[in-house]
Amino acid sequence: MTTDTVCPLCRPQGEAVVWRDPARRVILVADPAYPGYCRVIWNAHVREMTELSAEQRALMMNTVYAVEQVLRDQLRPDKINLASLGNQAPHLHWHVIPRFRDDAHFPDPVWAAARRAPPARSVDLAALRAALSAKLTG
Amino acid sequence: MTTDTVCPLCRPQGEAVVWRDPARRVILVADPAYPGYCRVIWNAHVREMTELSAEQRALMMNTVYAVEQVLRDQLRPDKINLASLGNQAPHLHWHVIPRFRDDAHFPDPVWAAARRAPPARSVDLAALRAALSAKLTG
Repeated sequence: MTTDTVCPLCRPQGEAVVWRDPARRVILVADPAYPGYCRVIWNAHVREMTELSAEQRALMMNTVYAVEQVLRDQLRPDKINLASLGNQAPHLHWHVIPRFRDDAHFPDPVWAAARRAPPARSVDLAALRAALSAKLTG
Repeated sequence: MTTDTVCPLCRPQGEAVVWRDPARRVILVADPAYPGYCRVIWNAHVREMTELSAEQRALMMNTVYAVEQVLRDQLRPDKINLASLGNQAPHLHWHVIPRFRDDAHFPDPVWAAARRAPPARSVDLAALRAALSAKLTG
């Protein structure tokens, strides 16, 4: 597929992979304002959820829910934001973003203009990896 | 529940309902820049997908997929954007937004600053309603 040669999600570089299997992978997004911000990526080059079979959709969303639950358990965010946009990289992927009332954009989406400097906050990557693996590999 | 008295999605006013059943409803968003922009709302006051049971999650997402497929069939957008944010109204709802290369924000999310004036475009509400009803009620 031509897109394979140019799509940044088909030919990823420097991804911080938290968990993966042949169908999908979870990566930690390198955004210092949003520790714990993850992306769930469908490994094959597909654009939309409705291009997947019902079984594949369920597999993808169960991965998203696992990440959401682990982030809720570990970070206790005020809200979880989920989004599948793909306007720039039309290769199916989900943003899973833990949001806090004092974060850089709250209550706006993270794609709006920032309202304030982000507070110091961190995520325990080893714990995140272990919890996600327990949920998805178990 | 106290939130019922203040939550705008528990006590909606002036919603353009496209389809509904006891569990969920689909409304057309009154945004002239994005004809066809729909929201899928879980009728009960729940914050996150992971607060629903597996069956409820599937019901919610199957509604989102139905809206996505109908919008793809009818409008042929360049991309579909899906998002569950809820920072301002923490009552579970999904944005389903048909995106075009010449729309007001493309390739940015609709929550970023606009790049251009939106082109003239429209949606056939009767056809949208009929197609969605055939998928969800049939």
